[in-house]
Amino acid sequence: MNELKVSFENVPSKWKDLGGRALTSTIVSEEVPPTCHPLGPNNKLVFAPGIVTGTSAPTSGRISVGGKSPLTGGIKEANAGTSFAQKLAKAGIKAIIVEGQRKDKGYLLNIAKDKAELIDATPWSGRGLYEAFAQIGDKYGKDIGICGTGIAGELGGAAAGIAFNDIEGLSSRYAGRGGLGAVMATRGLKFIVVNDEGGPGVEIHDKELFKHGTKKLTSALTTHGVTKPGGTLNTYGTDALINVINEAGALPHRNFSLGYDELAPLVSGEKKAETIKKRGGERPHMCSPGCIIQCSEVWVKEGGKDPVGVLEYESVWALGPNCGIYNLDDVGELNRACNDLGLDTIEAGDTLAVAMEGGLANFGDGKKALEMLEEVRKKTPLGRILANGTEFTGKAFGVTRIPTSKGQGMPAYDPRPIKGIGVTYMTTPMGADHTAGYAIAPEILGVGGKADPLDPKKADLSRGLQQATALIDSSGYCLFIAFAILDIPEGLEGMVESCNAVLGTKWTVSDAVNYGAKVLDIERKFNKAAGLTKAHDRPPEFMRTEALPPKNVVFDVSDAELDRVFPD
Amino acid sequence: MNELKVSFENVPSKWKDLGGRALTSTIVSEEVPPTCHPLGPNNKLVFAPGIVTGTSAPTSGRISVGGKSPLTGGIKEANAGTSFAQKLAKAGIKAIIVEGQRKDKGYLLNIAKDKAELIDATPWSGRGLYEAFAQIGDKYGKDIGICGTGIAGELGGAAAGIAFNDIEGLSSRYAGRGGLGAVMATRGLKFIVVNDEGGPGVEIHDKELFKHGTKKLTSALTTHGVTKPGGTLNTYGTDALINVINEAGALPHRNFSLGYDELAPLVSGEKKAETIKKRGGERPHMCSPGCIIQCSEVWVKEGGKDPVGVLEYESVWALGPNCGIYNLDDVGELNRACNDLGLDTIEAGDTLAVAMEGGLANFGDGKKALEMLEEVRKKTPLGRILANGTEFTGKAFGVTRIPTSKGQGMPAYDPRPIKGIGVTYMTTPMGADHTAGYAIAPEILGVGGKADPLDPKKADLSRGLQQATALIDSSGYCLFIAFAILDIPEGLEGMVESCNAVLGTKWTVSDAVNYGAKVLDIERKFNKAAGLTKAHDRPPEFMRTEALPPKNVVFDVSDAELDRVFPD
Repeated sequence: MNELKVSFENVPSKWKDLGGRALTSTIVSEEVPPTCHPLGPNNKLVFAPGIVTGTSAPTSGRISVGGKSPLTGGIKEANAGTSFAQKLAKAGIKAIIVEGQRKDKGYLLNIAKDKAELIDATPWSGRGLYEAFAQIGDKYGKDIGICGTGIAGELGGAAAGIAFNDIEGLSSRYAGRGGLGAVMATRGLKFIVVNDEGGPGVEIHDKELFKHGTKKLTSALTTHGVTKPGGTLNTYGTDALINVINEAGALPHRNFSLGYDELAPLVSGEKKAETIKKRGGERPHMCSPGCIIQCSEVWVKEGGKDPVGVLEYESVWALGPNCGIYNLDDVGELNRACNDLGLDTIEAGDTLAVAMEGGLANFGDGKKALEMLEEVRKKTPLGRILANGTEFTGKAFGVTRIPTSKGQGMPAYDPRPIKGIGVTYMTTPMGADHTAGYAIAPEILGVGGKADPLDPKKADLSRGLQQATALIDSSGYCLFIAFAILDIPEGLEGMVESCNAVLGTKWTVSDAVNYGAKVLDIERKFNKAAGLTKAHDRPPEFMRTEALPPKNVVFDVSDAELDRVFPD
Repeated sequence: MNELKVSFENVPSKWKDLGGRALTSTIVSEEVPPTCHPLGPNNKLVFAPGIVTGTSAPTSGRISVGGKSPLTGGIKEANAGTSFAQKLAKAGIKAIIVEGQRKDKGYLLNIAKDKAELIDATPWSGRGLYEAFAQIGDKYGKDIGICGTGIAGELGGAAAGIAFNDIEGLSSRYAGRGGLGAVMATRGLKFIVVNDEGGPGVEIHDKELFKHGTKKLTSALTTHGVTKPGGTLNTYGTDALINVINEAGALPHRNFSLGYDELAPLVSGEKKAETIKKRGGERPHMCSPGCIIQCSEVWVKEGGKDPVGVLEYESVWALGPNCGIYNLDDVGELNRACNDLGLDTIEAGDTLAVAMEGGLANFGDGKKALEMLEEVRKKTPLGRILANGTEFTGKAFGVTRIPTSKGQGMPAYDPRPIKGIGVTYMTTPMGADHTAGYAIAPEILGVGGKADPLDPKKADLSRGLQQATALIDSSGYCLFIAFAILDIPEGLEGMVESCNAVLGTKWTVSDAVNYGAKVLDIERKFNKAAGLTKAHDRPPEFMRTEALPPKNVVFDVSDAELDRVFPD
């Protein structure tokens, strides 16, 4: 970026079998000094589609983004489902490595057949991302992938995510977590556009095996109750979890002070699906072409106006019940503001709740919450505080009940009544992240076996899930295929076969899990060198002492059990 | 504090030989969980006068304050010279341990003969400390020790120090560093008053030896050019260093971007002494009774008004040249604001300079700098950012040139042209702290031997100084006796003899240094358990790459050399 130079490089053979998270984490660990300032000149930002992304493999339009996180101080991989991922892969690009730092203004990286150039992005900088994405679409054509960082990123805010286009071109698909939007903006890179017209497509080493494998996987996806057409995710979206987790007494309300509230159904997936239908939004809907699950949607205001894109469970919870807000219109507006400003919805919701606890607004005041987010647009001191996330906001306003791990705000499952997800929050190299090892599946949903959520022995469960997840995050498949492949062995085989087919490898299922384990090793080594220790694998202090109603349990997984996840 | 209960306890025999820093660090390491939230219910705040404090030993009115630091995340000891220390010791109190947390309002701990009670401090809370100390003096009598935390502490600001009275009763003596003011305020403790009338005094085990030892030390202090009456410190105060360090090209100007500026003499000790004389302030002056060095002063405005207390070298530099301000009246006003708000002057100056680099004011704009500090009093979002110190402010405003170590702002010596002090900044358990191992003595002043400031081999020098300092910080003697005892062996012997005389121990000089080494071990063990690693012993990234004019050198002490200070 400092020389505004773009160059193509062949993929080194050592990286040949890597994709998605495996590739971003490997490049970051090889090329970024672990103790560098995340927003300084030596951090790098890496974009990589997954192994099968860009092929016809079902539900595989994922892109990973990696770098050193300004939120956790450790390595970060965040991923999103978007046609951008598929277009990048089809353009024949295995990764974009952004290095150096340019401070004069923001730039747009324009990628097309045999071309990659950096262009002055001034016309679209400092604006909301909905408007910017629309204008970029007007200029570069509708059938392109767009990626961008918003005003929150321009401020260097550690709560800033990276936005990608959905099928409508809205800035609603996020590699949200860990502040990578700030890393992007401080490189001087504001947007990436990719046009895959005339691109080589993804080379498949063994086409027969690919057909065979994807067929098995497709069969699993179309069979399993969670993932099949007309199944839970398809019908209600991820937000189907609101009622389930609320009933489990583990839906965090009002800054993690309560696990159940009778008002929760007002923001449930059921309620949302019904409202979308009434208003003429879209449901179900694909986040990227070729998805079988189709959990996405287009939320709109009354009268079909102001399309937001999907309101995910995490976003609805974070900006809803966690802020004491039980109104889908308020949630929709807050989600739109986050998407527009380039804020991670989970971090933003945790941040707003902590600000509310700090006295800046009453819980439940959606209007005031929106005004607070708009401070980010105005770049005021308050906006700068909020753009830096949960822990930062807590420090600024003297709040010590801070639901974070490694500085990252916790997602929509209170770890006190669901221990396994807590073990994942504390021990994943990513900071509090439910997707890093989704213990909710066996603990609550009865998928991939059954585990008692209150049993504090969860090191083995979390470790296994973290390894499998690192594999899936590298494959390019959406993590939601896990629901099917955890229960249907042929689905898992098919998934591994499809990767083998693309790469020309001969992995067994156990090789594939080892691949995930190696990714974790690389990430943990980086974190160790960056200064993260066992002391960073601990719960927030209040979760050890404050019992969460109505189950009235604290987080009682022992330090020893937490350390057993990764014993070295 | 949660029960508003005060009780006296006998000193456990294991703590019998401990005082000052040795005692605070031992109690903190035994009683505070290393991973606790520094502002949460499990942190403790410990006050302890030194071993000889309260006796007639010269220049020994020091008090140590310890706890887990909200600024560094590690253990913290900050100390101050104040009659409060002597009165506490004479009242027969070896330490105050503040535990628990009270949130309803602030309290005042009133200590007098056979009495200690917690009183509602509402009348003096939320006020400037000059006014509060004066009113408390009016109520409790002039001949008392007063300690307090200000508005910055009430905000939970990590830049908040703890103020003690000077001889005039001004809130100008600070245990400033590491945010202990916020720890105090979040306990619910706003002030401590101590009246030693009728107290038992400090028991001296061997009075003859005490006389013998203190005589030798006094002789050294009155002989050495730096410490003797009419010597450097006595005549010009600590601020005599402005010209010396500026000439060495190591006085940080404008947020550590330059090591020399021809304007520096305008804020020199020479200029200041002359101005004080003209205006009718006081110079020299004792910070506490019985001091031979008398480096202190009372700075006043034109016409003798608004006495501030001392303008130390560190404060003058931080609020002056580091902010591009070369005007003693501006510096005096800023220092008064810090003393009034309860802010550490070093952290405040580093913070203002980073805010200036972030575009909030022009370097050199003293009026605007004062307005910024006053935001703390108004408790605005900007004030809350600034009250949290250098690194926090840098994050809020997207500045990556952040001169900190372990999150604590660097003092008045740029480590690039003076490597040894840099090694101390990076490796002391305290975060960037010049007093923790004052390598300036041999590197610049030719005291305690001579060392080439540009030689990057400084592990042994810094380690030795850190051990000696931990001893002195425990003894109750002011660190400035080091100038004399490093050069005059009888002075060092006398110092150790005086400690032996009080405690009834039989330390050799080498035993005494081991005592200091043990204190460091305890502190480092705490930090390790709190999550601090070798990665936290590294310089800020920009100091590795940006050469400091006019010497044009980077900080080139290798990681290996830094790790050699404490190899385990």
